[in-house]
Amino acid sequence: MGQSLNPVVTGLRSSAIRDLLAVTRRPGMLSLAGGLPAADTFPAERIGQAVHRALEADPTAVLQYGPTEGYPPLREWIAGYEAARSGRPVDAGQVVVTAGSQQALDLLVRTLAAPGDLVVVEEPAYLGALQAVRAAGAVPVPVPVDSGGLDVDLLARRLAAGLRPAAVYTVTTFHNPSGVVLAPARRRRLAELAERHGFVVIEDDPYAELRFEGDPLPPVRSWSDRVATLGSFSKTLAPGLRVGWVVLPEALAGPVVRLKQAADLQTGSLGQAVVAELVADADWWQAHLRGLRVAYAARAVALHEALTRAFGGRLAVGVPRGGMFAWGRFVDGTDTASLMPVALDRGVAFVPGSEFFVGAPDRATLRLSFATLPPDGLREAVGRLLVAHDEVSSGWSRGSREASSSARCTPSVPAS
Amino acid sequence: MGQSLNPVVTGLRSSAIRDLLAVTRRPGMLSLAGGLPAADTFPAERIGQAVHRALEADPTAVLQYGPTEGYPPLREWIAGYEAARSGRPVDAGQVVVTAGSQQALDLLVRTLAAPGDLVVVEEPAYLGALQAVRAAGAVPVPVPVDSGGLDVDLLARRLAAGLRPAAVYTVTTFHNPSGVVLAPARRRRLAELAERHGFVVIEDDPYAELRFEGDPLPPVRSWSDRVATLGSFSKTLAPGLRVGWVVLPEALAGPVVRLKQAADLQTGSLGQAVVAELVADADWWQAHLRGLRVAYAARAVALHEALTRAFGGRLAVGVPRGGMFAWGRFVDGTDTASLMPVALDRGVAFVPGSEFFVGAPDRATLRLSFATLPPDGLREAVGRLLVAHDEVSSGWSRGSREASSSARCTPSVPAS
Repeated sequence: MGQSLNPVVTGLRSSAIRDLLAVTRRPGMLSLAGGLPAADTFPAERIGQAVHRALEADPTAVLQYGPTEGYPPLREWIAGYEAARSGRPVDAGQVVVTAGSQQALDLLVRTLAAPGDLVVVEEPAYLGALQAVRAAGAVPVPVPVDSGGLDVDLLARRLAAGLRPAAVYTVTTFHNPSGVVLAPARRRRLAELAERHGFVVIEDDPYAELRFEGDPLPPVRSWSDRVATLGSFSKTLAPGLRVGWVVLPEALAGPVVRLKQAADLQTGSLGQAVVAELVADADWWQAHLRGLRVAYAARAVALHEALTRAFGGRLAVGVPRGGMFAWGRFVDGTDTASLMPVALDRGVAFVPGSEFFVGAPDRATLRLSFATLPPDGLREAVGRLLVAHDEVSSGWSRGSREASSSARCTPSVPAS
Repeated sequence: MGQSLNPVVTGLRSSAIRDLLAVTRRPGMLSLAGGLPAADTFPAERIGQAVHRALEADPTAVLQYGPTEGYPPLREWIAGYEAARSGRPVDAGQVVVTAGSQQALDLLVRTLAAPGDLVVVEEPAYLGALQAVRAAGAVPVPVPVDSGGLDVDLLARRLAAGLRPAAVYTVTTFHNPSGVVLAPARRRRLAELAERHGFVVIEDDPYAELRFEGDPLPPVRSWSDRVATLGSFSKTLAPGLRVGWVVLPEALAGPVVRLKQAADLQTGSLGQAVVAELVADADWWQAHLRGLRVAYAARAVALHEALTRAFGGRLAVGVPRGGMFAWGRFVDGTDTASLMPVALDRGVAFVPGSEFFVGAPDRATLRLSFATLPPDGLREAVGRLLVAHDEVSSGWSRGSREASSSARCTPSVPAS
């Protein structure tokens, strides 16, 4: 251009997962990479009927400009849902319907953090969160995740030592990418830390309804009003509708809505009306969610069993209890970024764990989604992954450090 | 919150027009305020059929995550349309489908301007542009509009004197709010200035197809690749679909797409598929556009005639040649911000011109949209405006400077 662009934006990396979308569409490719919901669970016929009903009932409400805050019946439903699960009142005035929860994240980070401000993220972290934090010119500060979710004790020590983040971002339930759930005691502690240290918790909870067993956990918002809770219909209805939401602390509603005016005026009314129609039929909606849980639980089991059978002790991988992801770690020294191009050649895609790290990556990790493929496809994909792994391993055992280091320097995923 | 928020965001003003949406929904209110398209022109039935066809043909394409850049068939159509009207090649890779053209504006300003950078805007300016510029932390620099559009000669002198903007934003055709069209010689000159001084022109052209007479003008992009052209289906199909676009200089495509990943991952697939279905039927699409032009031309004439009859020489207002807006100026000393609350009491809404100014406002101006109401409604609205005007005028002629100044201090539009 011969013009200096905003360095914050030119410095953004493309999401490896978004880039992989193109690769995973190659004929014959089996993808464990993206968090793409199972297409056969999309209620296409119901969605078509809902469009028809909404257009019949009030075409202007669906097609004309509408309020920036969102379609009123949908905001009311979301307020009721979030109040019920948190045990705290939610006024519809605190709810903003967004273009997926990704937009809520972008708007929140821009509102809370001025350029140079710190935002705590998990390590490993959701890639979209890293992008939103960096796009706002804020600085992601990683705090590790363990089997109980974000290490809130470590966060407390760092806060006591003087860390002053504008916000703490966490995927509380069936974490992306690690699959773990933030333990109840940690949820409460995190809320207390927000109150004491004056930051806002950005609680991203798109997988809460995809629980295969046990009772739902109260969200972090149950213990504090200093929490913005994000939700989405992308995992439970269809991502193409682009309907998510945020429940905001009251003081943030005004600034976030004004920023959304600047960002896109409003979320699409047709998508909002469709969602409002569908969730209004509570019996259908609950049956639909039960169906999703059964389908994803079967896929999670199929992936886990296939991985265990294929790799035995060479791959440490937990049994997913919900959500869409299994997080694995090779204990045989496999570098998953080196495994990646070989796996793509063998017709299987996954995301190397290194993509999710802010600090020094654990290069033996990988994220495997069980959401996109049916059980047979998952088993076939794991078979291909094993072939690729054995090829890399044999090369590795023969191989030089040079080969390994050159593999590190090539992009781990193709640029789109 | 007891927490400092990003001052750039807390400093944003709500759009007067967005706030007025709530007021204009009061029963019996006649609105000349928002740029709301005529609801009776929305092709609701065709949209319903298009949804049905898209869901039948390929439900996954409509409901699953899709490419950040947009739905491929729609990008191809937009590339063809923009190539044809500019006489320059457009590759689909330069096209990004956005959530209305407002999102394109937000993404572009964030990409081009770092905080503190300058962005030239028109005076008076589109409010959404001011919001996007300010939300990015950039500084709007107003350059006046006259009957030939942006005063490009004045811009040239300011550039020669050292002004170095990151971008120049202009609504080229049937300007919002003033209704004027950027003259062809100025389009060419603006493109030359962009080449010489190394800025990007953000050419916002949502009203190009709403031309009541004469031939379409070539866009600024016809003369330079340093132009990002924004378009929208909000004015020609339905705003609730939230489908707009930008044709980008090649060097900007990568950064803008990465920023869009962070902002919302992608534009809604359902809306994009509907639009692609509708415009693919070229005969229907052209007939639909002809119908819009006839309907809006009749409204423009009705509004202009009613204003002339009601106010005579007291109101200077041009005959709209396209678009959605008439821009008026009272020559009898009426302060339109003071007129506004009285007009709302009388059941008619408009936007005081002062809302559109960055510098010292011309307080006698007002923007009147002829798009929303049918001719009878427009005539009734003007009648109510006359009653309000006469009330304010008689108060004004009696009134004190104190009364006038206190009216200035109260918000000119109700906060939502």
